[in-house]
Amino acid sequence: MVHFYFDFISPYAYFAWLRMRGICQARGVELVLHPIVFGAVLSHHGQLGPAEIPSKRIFTFKDISRYAALHGIALRGVAAHPFNPLTALRVSLPAVAGVHQERVIDTLFRGGWGAGADLGDPVAIASLLDAASLPGTELVSRTRDPAIKAALADETARAIAAGVFGVPTMIVGDELVWGNDRLSDLERILDGEDPLPSDLVDRLLSLPSGQQRRR
Amino acid sequence: MVHFYFDFISPYAYFAWLRMRGICQARGVELVLHPIVFGAVLSHHGQLGPAEIPSKRIFTFKDISRYAALHGIALRGVAAHPFNPLTALRVSLPAVAGVHQERVIDTLFRGGWGAGADLGDPVAIASLLDAASLPGTELVSRTRDPAIKAALADETARAIAAGVFGVPTMIVGDELVWGNDRLSDLERILDGEDPLPSDLVDRLLSLPSGQQRRR
Repeated sequence: MVHFYFDFISPYAYFAWLRMRGICQARGVELVLHPIVFGAVLSHHGQLGPAEIPSKRIFTFKDISRYAALHGIALRGVAAHPFNPLTALRVSLPAVAGVHQERVIDTLFRGGWGAGADLGDPVAIASLLDAASLPGTELVSRTRDPAIKAALADETARAIAAGVFGVPTMIVGDELVWGNDRLSDLERILDGEDPLPSDLVDRLLSLPSGQQRRR
Repeated sequence: MVHFYFDFISPYAYFAWLRMRGICQARGVELVLHPIVFGAVLSHHGQLGPAEIPSKRIFTFKDISRYAALHGIALRGVAAHPFNPLTALRVSLPAVAGVHQERVIDTLFRGGWGAGADLGDPVAIASLLDAASLPGTELVSRTRDPAIKAALADETARAIAAGVFGVPTMIVGDELVWGNDRLSDLERILDGEDPLPSDLVDRLLSLPSGQQRRR
């Protein structure tokens, strides 16, 4: 079982999403999808996102453009960035999307980062889903339910408790893997071919601290 | 000309260092080495380093262990982490290391991350350099000069002004590339094969902001 933690705000989550189902299906492994609020994860850790540091924002947009060009991936970009991802995330919860969850997520990622739709706009989200023969207007209307708002906050809190510090994150058993560029590591873990030298890791994790940085 | 910004505190800077000279030599490109204080870069941006978030620290140490195992790279780890990198960085400045700069940096990276020396200890640093037939004790003694301390602070300030937000960072002309896992992008840039779609980048960088995260 692979747990996939994502937020539509992240283009790297889009790239990872495009490969996740194939990685799991090829191995007969269940994929469990966790929409979470990246901004809340950052706030919990007192961090800034890549788009919140000017020179890192420039690098990040160049980096995703290079990646898409090299891999032949559709990337038009969303209509605004950053945007409010809450409706898109809530509509992707199992409690809202139900059996349609994978199609809802796929439609939003491809319609947003792939084709330029505004994933911060509930009307645009409903239109995207309707156009994909999903009950978009009905699903979006359910995201205003306080219980659904609480469900997204709960997903996010559980992710933080599980150690998630960024998106996309994949968790398999005890292994947490972060980043689209670490999907090959996930595949090796699933294939029983993780080269992790556990004695080295144990040694590194038990290193004494030589100094604490002043904050 | 490739500018390479690094701090010994970062194992990814160690990995990138192992490839940098080969990448430049194969293309007849000059390599300019910039020791900088990663902690000061983080403080400037109000960020935490990977080892300062507990679950990210665990992931990072596993990640570098996997990378070293997969690529056959010596990784024993330093003697303490985090450690005070200032002496190691100052001894690597052109104003101290002079014509020995590449060998000083190479000796410290390999002796520290590769073989387990304490890069936070001036005595250990001098011993490592002496053992490599470099004038270690003399070089380390010069790092106490206030002008040398100022030179490291200047390097760091200039790096931040150039947009550096992490280590390792490579700058070629107007292109800033961040991360050991982006050295292939650096190679394509040097080879005139950067697939960067500039119209897409321009569009992404001019996206309107749909929301600002509350801090």
